[in-house]
Amino acid sequence: MNNIWPYDVPGIPDDMFIRRDVPMTKREIRCLAMSAMRLRNSSIVWDIGAGTGSVSVEAAIIAKNGRVYAVEKDAQALALIQQNAERFELDNIEAVYGEAPDILEKLPAPDAVFIGGSGGYMGSIMNTCGQRLRSGGTLVINCISLENAALAIEAMRACGFIGTDIIQAAISRGSMAVCHTMLKALNPIFIISGRRGDEIEG
Amino acid sequence: MNNIWPYDVPGIPDDMFIRRDVPMTKREIRCLAMSAMRLRNSSIVWDIGAGTGSVSVEAAIIAKNGRVYAVEKDAQALALIQQNAERFELDNIEAVYGEAPDILEKLPAPDAVFIGGSGGYMGSIMNTCGQRLRSGGTLVINCISLENAALAIEAMRACGFIGTDIIQAAISRGSMAVCHTMLKALNPIFIISGRRGDEIEG
Amino acid sequence: MNNIWPYDVPGIPDDMFIRRDVPMTKREIRCLAMSAMRLRNSSIVWDIGAGTGSVSVEAAIIAKNGRVYAVEKDAQALALIQQNAERFELDNIEAVYGEAPDILEKLPAPDAVFIGGSGGYMGSIMNTCGQRLRSGGTLVINCISLENAALAIEAMRACGFIGTDIIQAAISRGSMAVCHTMLKALNPIFIISGRRGDEIEG
Amino acid sequence: MNNIWPYDVPGIPDDMFIRRDVPMTKREIRCLAMSAMRLRNSSIVWDIGAGTGSVSVEAAIIAKNGRVYAVEKDAQALALIQQNAERFELDNIEAVYGEAPDILEKLPAPDAVFIGGSGGYMGSIMNTCGQRLRSGGTLVINCISLENAALAIEAMRACGFIGTDIIQAAISRGSMAVCHTMLKALNPIFIISGRRGDEIEG
Repeated sequence: MNNIWPYDVPGIPDDMFIRRDVPMTKREIRCLAMSAMRLRNSSIVWDIGAGTGSVSVEAAIIAKNGRVYAVEKDAQALALIQQNAERFELDNIEAVYGEAPDILEKLPAPDAVFIGGSGGYMGSIMNTCGQRLRSGGTLVINCISLENAALAIEAMRACGFIGTDIIQAAISRGSMAVCHTMLKALNPIFIISGRRGDEIEG
Repeated sequence: MNNIWPYDVPGIPDDMFIRRDVPMTKREIRCLAMSAMRLRNSSIVWDIGAGTGSVSVEAAIIAKNGRVYAVEKDAQALALIQQNAERFELDNIEAVYGEAPDILEKLPAPDAVFIGGSGGYMGSIMNTCGQRLRSGGTLVINCISLENAALAIEAMRACGFIGTDIIQAAISRGSMAVCHTMLKALNPIFIISGRRGDEIEG
Repeated sequence: MNNIWPYDVPGIPDDMFIRRDVPMTKREIRCLAMSAMRLRNSSIVWDIGAGTGSVSVEAAIIAKNGRVYAVEKDAQALALIQQNAERFELDNIEAVYGEAPDILEKLPAPDAVFIGGSGGYMGSIMNTCGQRLRSGGTLVINCISLENAALAIEAMRACGFIGTDIIQAAISRGSMAVCHTMLKALNPIFIISGRRGDEIEG
Repeated sequence: MNNIWPYDVPGIPDDMFIRRDVPMTKREIRCLAMSAMRLRNSSIVWDIGAGTGSVSVEAAIIAKNGRVYAVEKDAQALALIQQNAERFELDNIEAVYGEAPDILEKLPAPDAVFIGGSGGYMGSIMNTCGQRLRSGGTLVINCISLENAALAIEAMRACGFIGTDIIQAAISRGSMAVCHTMLKALNPIFIISGRRGDEIEG
């Protein structure tokens, strides 16, 4: 059990993370992505383009006997990941400085990969994931642009992933002001997931 | 670890449940509701208006050392809950025949309550939950109607809940057909949650 | 034909209006509201809580042989309405200083009413509209809060309106950045409309 | 003034059209598309992939001194267009049997084009529209697939269109049942529009 988030489900509120100006995957979207990653408590996870590390933190809490590799090419974001790992008292997050796909060669084979940002190399990153993921392993990609969503869907097929699942999540948060609940929309996000294709479908 | 859903996060695909004609909380909505319930592996859970039991099954997998009381007034749905509990090999789900709020008197105090259907007694059910929930316990309500959402938000205050969180989730699923991804919308749902108010806010 | 917006459909871009800090009904929402108002070129229109006057301007362009009464209790917004009427060279908008429902007594009977803001008097404003609207006239209400939407829907019935139509519009705008289209969500709005009830339904 | 839809704004209810099994652009989406087309009462309009003819009917009512060419390659849909034109007593709709882009050569230059279906030839249809549209003319495309939306956005640039505007419209309709308003979601649609590029931007 984690002392800071003492629950066995994802869903840490956004304001529990140290954020600065680094973009963060919002709580509701993180929940949906974590579900799509199909984590176990022993999972080896790659979080590519980890940003603040919010997905890494959630994954590390679930995969408490596993390990999360938070890949980030921005030095400032890297420091933030480490700070958030410390805040949540997690010693199974490794902040990895470098750029995907090259840096991925050095990491152990994952059970689950999350791509929050691809820096323009989505196709080759997905290809590497298709080769390195363990049997039955899952790949989850969050896309904020239409074009990246279309590209990721196409690459799922091209890289041999199966069971591709696509959702667009449009979440609005109700903010209350004197008996009135106003809905404030988060920007819609595409969450695209699939499994490494040598798995027996079922 | 559950043999049928061997993962440590919610998100069981809808078609893994036995459904018949009973309405079911969809996978993505279940994930968001499970997160809002802040379950632990020892949680005592009430699932009020349990329908197919899909929320009960997800909760019972997370709360593997706890217990889930699936309350349902429809005998056919009750049978379905038991079938789904068996399918997922769960012996910590108790299907309880009866109508809330009356039936709730007989159940042990919960750590988390999910209201999927209130049969017109939402206010009194929420009041009972406000009294019976353990300290720090969470109440989560899914509403498909505007009026129920407004009522639930008001009752959160009236029943002394704190930290009320409101989201409207509009999920579309991408269905692929020959290189084209069509977005099919699920109906938007309000997910309203709060914690029993004697907890020290934090 | 209007010189500034030389088209015969609603949909003036937001940035063509003088706005300052006054909240404005966004272009896409204005289109949907204008449609629900079922304007004719001779319509008498009340725009209650007119804000910047963007709805009044669109209505005045369609109802070129009619007249639009833009009711506003905020003096600064009132000046803005007049400036926007001038910018679009419209002499059939009358900016009316005062608070609904009282001020409505002084206005000629309308064919269509738009309520963009009700200042807490929605029920009595709707009641007045139900009495003063001409036969077959339409009432359209934009609500940003759940509670107001629920209230407006109930009042539609209570005030004898028929053919009530309710939509929630969740519009995202694509903003392009180097071959990537990001979706930016506008906050979802409820648009509720109905017709005065003495009309023969059909 | 049209006898059947005696209003000067778009927004004819879906059930006023003869539909059969032919897919139809829904009322709210039609309103938004009509606005993006920036019609005038004298406009020449092409409605490509006209389906039931619902967009053609709305356009013909606004462009009462203009003419609407409803292009359709399906003979059954073509008959439907003619029936709907008759129902709304419109003699300025011409149902054109054939496939775009080839058939477009025979039509007079348009002020506005709506593409509701492209049968796989979107790029070449858009190219033809870019050449044939009158100065300042508008092109509007409705896409239900991600890939077509991305393609249309790219082709807008490639074909020299300017002022490209992209929205994703997610409309839910409230259906009332005994004091409860349930939101039923329509599938989200992308509406993409632009103007022929030789116009002076402004």
